[in-house]
Amino acid sequence: MENKAERISLLDEYERMGEPDEEALRAELKEERAKLAGYQTRIKEAGLPVMVILEGFGAAGKGSVLGRIIKNIDPRFFRVRTMDPPTKEEKRYPFLHRYLKDIPEAGKFTFFDNYWMAEVTECLFSGNLSEEEYRKRVGSINRTERSLTDNGYLVMKFFFDISEKEQHKRLKHLREDRNTRWRVSKRDLHENDNYEEYRAGYGRYLSDTNRSAAPWYVVEAGDRKWAELQVLRFLNQGIETALKNHAMAVPIRQNVFPLKKIPLLQDISLADKTLTEEEYKEKLEKLQEELADLHNEIYRRKIPVIIAYEGWDAAGKGGNIKRVAAALDPRGYEVHPIASPEPHEKARHYLWRFWTRLPKDGHIAIFDRTWYGRVMVERLEGFCSENDWQRAYNEINEFEKELTDWGAVVIKFWVQIDKDTQLTRFTERQNTPEKQWKITEEDWRNREKWDQYEEAVNEMLQKTSTETAPWVVLESNDKKYARIKALETIVEALKKACKERENG
Amino acid sequence: MENKAERISLLDEYERMGEPDEEALRAELKEERAKLAGYQTRIKEAGLPVMVILEGFGAAGKGSVLGRIIKNIDPRFFRVRTMDPPTKEEKRYPFLHRYLKDIPEAGKFTFFDNYWMAEVTECLFSGNLSEEEYRKRVGSINRTERSLTDNGYLVMKFFFDISEKEQHKRLKHLREDRNTRWRVSKRDLHENDNYEEYRAGYGRYLSDTNRSAAPWYVVEAGDRKWAELQVLRFLNQGIETALKNHAMAVPIRQNVFPLKKIPLLQDISLADKTLTEEEYKEKLEKLQEELADLHNEIYRRKIPVIIAYEGWDAAGKGGNIKRVAAALDPRGYEVHPIASPEPHEKARHYLWRFWTRLPKDGHIAIFDRTWYGRVMVERLEGFCSENDWQRAYNEINEFEKELTDWGAVVIKFWVQIDKDTQLTRFTERQNTPEKQWKITEEDWRNREKWDQYEEAVNEMLQKTSTETAPWVVLESNDKKYARIKALETIVEALKKACKERENG
Repeated sequence: MENKAERISLLDEYERMGEPDEEALRAELKEERAKLAGYQTRIKEAGLPVMVILEGFGAAGKGSVLGRIIKNIDPRFFRVRTMDPPTKEEKRYPFLHRYLKDIPEAGKFTFFDNYWMAEVTECLFSGNLSEEEYRKRVGSINRTERSLTDNGYLVMKFFFDISEKEQHKRLKHLREDRNTRWRVSKRDLHENDNYEEYRAGYGRYLSDTNRSAAPWYVVEAGDRKWAELQVLRFLNQGIETALKNHAMAVPIRQNVFPLKKIPLLQDISLADKTLTEEEYKEKLEKLQEELADLHNEIYRRKIPVIIAYEGWDAAGKGGNIKRVAAALDPRGYEVHPIASPEPHEKARHYLWRFWTRLPKDGHIAIFDRTWYGRVMVERLEGFCSENDWQRAYNEINEFEKELTDWGAVVIKFWVQIDKDTQLTRFTERQNTPEKQWKITEEDWRNREKWDQYEEAVNEMLQKTSTETAPWVVLESNDKKYARIKALETIVEALKKACKERENG
Repeated sequence: MENKAERISLLDEYERMGEPDEEALRAELKEERAKLAGYQTRIKEAGLPVMVILEGFGAAGKGSVLGRIIKNIDPRFFRVRTMDPPTKEEKRYPFLHRYLKDIPEAGKFTFFDNYWMAEVTECLFSGNLSEEEYRKRVGSINRTERSLTDNGYLVMKFFFDISEKEQHKRLKHLREDRNTRWRVSKRDLHENDNYEEYRAGYGRYLSDTNRSAAPWYVVEAGDRKWAELQVLRFLNQGIETALKNHAMAVPIRQNVFPLKKIPLLQDISLADKTLTEEEYKEKLEKLQEELADLHNEIYRRKIPVIIAYEGWDAAGKGGNIKRVAAALDPRGYEVHPIASPEPHEKARHYLWRFWTRLPKDGHIAIFDRTWYGRVMVERLEGFCSENDWQRAYNEINEFEKELTDWGAVVIKFWVQIDKDTQLTRFTERQNTPEKQWKITEEDWRNREKWDQYEEAVNEMLQKTSTETAPWVVLESNDKKYARIKALETIVEALKKACKERENG
């Protein structure tokens, strides 16, 4: 950490507003409250999701200001979330998981009383987290907030600032009343005893996470009405701006992730990728046994595994997944079939339904279709704007980086067949009563767009085959070949991960 | 507990099937597996939700049989859930909460590897739970399973039985391998050391929860293939029967809950229930202060509170809730606006979306419209069958009993206005731009059905005003009066609950 003088200055650098006199304050409060109430319908109509994050010193009055602010909003339009320290169970997921679970849906507010600041800055005080981990988490937060704001979220961040003396007074007052004593935690007392150190840490955190699209607002919280007014002023300004800018295009960022070379679909040879029934059976049995053992080992080592399947309709994803799953202990994996999003999913960030489906450590999640829908079906069917899917390559690379940084093994399969093989399989499904449920009108419509899909898939493979989460093509004109290759890939990846864990 | 001889006999009483020879077993296994695979589409089409519960001795091979069985089912149609002992966080909800969270949706399976048996029988062994608590939980389970099967769920329950010797051998084997050692818990060892006692306890539990609509099947689990076949046989039989009986009417049960007298809507006088602005302001301030203090107290005492609002459109529910919420700490309550169910909600038991929205202990959940939709809008619009809503009175009484048994304060408000007042308010909303979002075509359509609604509401009030969760009518022609009455009711109920906790 830097020297004390410098540390203190970071939090003090934020511009403070002049506090109006009592009468002016009352008048303005009334006005701003009415303004917020008036925004509700417009927010609803514009489908603007609003995240309001309240951080600050213990006993700075976040709760009480929050209580006043939500009085202006219909309960149908907001939720309040209080973040406690992570439970043992929550620690089995990526750091961001429990925070992203509760992001608002389009047209609604979520107010967070405490968000990820506490968990991230803790390391600056307790030493439980390394400096490296702190930087990593700050990076995660900045990328995540950008992904949220780029995807139309309004993210408003407030830091409630009070002096050491004021905090001391309030904590004492709370502790004297039997009904409010529980509100004072050990951490609050520790914070007050080491006020300057915490102030420096918070200042650094604010500075590290201050972004133009989601800046920090430091609120002087000595007086509650004044604090409320400051929040209302900024919040209303933020909403006004967001409503004006809604659906504005966002710059596409340059790729920063090392990519792995991957061939274009048209250059992948399929005809020579076959196995005899005999070879297949022999390899299948051996690989499934190996995988079963490895499943135990990754459970023991608490390694999370994410296996993603994409591919043409009738390419054989289902049967492939079945052969993988057959080797796994049902208590340690889950298959997530991904169809078009349900209304409550569509109303949130497009990665939300994947964040909430991540495996816990030691477990395996298999996705039958994935977050890549954004740059395939959503792109081609116009379910999102061009700017949206153009931006998604980077957002997805970042999402996967988050997973591999967490320690997850990420395996991505593209199951490849040629157009003739698809036709043969479609026709067979159509003619076999037990398989008819597998083939729909939509499949035939998608087939007509084969060339457009091929272009989109090629772009996707080129742009998202990162070194940490590369695509693997499964040549599946012969399904047996594809199954064995999938199993081999998984076995190899898990072996490697277990070995690294042994050495690391 | 009864004497040992009697205890042992309970688990042994179940009929055992003769094990076929190896060849016959293989042949039948193949047949039964194919049968299960074939049922998938029919289950999907019939919208049959299937719960498969696997209980039994530790190391009885539930996991491995489960692994084989799900191989026959497409991953799109099933999920597997493993229940661990409850976490600290989970213990803050009603006992059933974490179990009901994962019930399957229509047309799909959920397989539970362990369900609520462990948590319930624990008391029989460890003495952490009293005999009384055991009986209470068994009652909860039986009522819940009935509510599930009555609402079209197929609930299949298997108990995996192995001998003391066999268990001992398996545990030893598992512990010798580094990769499987973690599978053996202290509890497993304790179980084996006290095999007879556990056997007796499980026997009693099975007998206590053996119901005609969801009977227990005891599976001889000494040999894995044979165990698999037994499960498949029963499961396939169960599915076949359920598919045949689907949408069959279920007997309506007689009410067993003491009811509180409540007047018919037409006998409620409204004109005399008014307050002057002055009285209102004075009382409001006083009551909100009291409520704020009580909110702290119920938090401290960990009392969960559920406040349910039903009433005519434009009766003033929203404004009423606002006055209550204004007194509460936003970190300790949540308002749940209930609209028509989303697809993933409609696909489950109609109470599921309420189970998953319950408050944790010390918190308040306010429902703006509730589970009573079943016997009002769903009844009148034909969204459920007559048998469904007829049965719902009892199901709801049981649901609420579950909540009050848990220790929750349940307050139910019917917000009453007369037809003329509604018209005045509708017209005002229509003519006020900021309020137009509050009035829809549907509101006008509902108004046309006023008489039918009145009949349904009267029936609802009469049948569900139980002594533990009575309805309170809020006369709301004068909204001020209704708000004060709501606050008074809540304050009184919370005071009473706090006092009881003090004495109890």
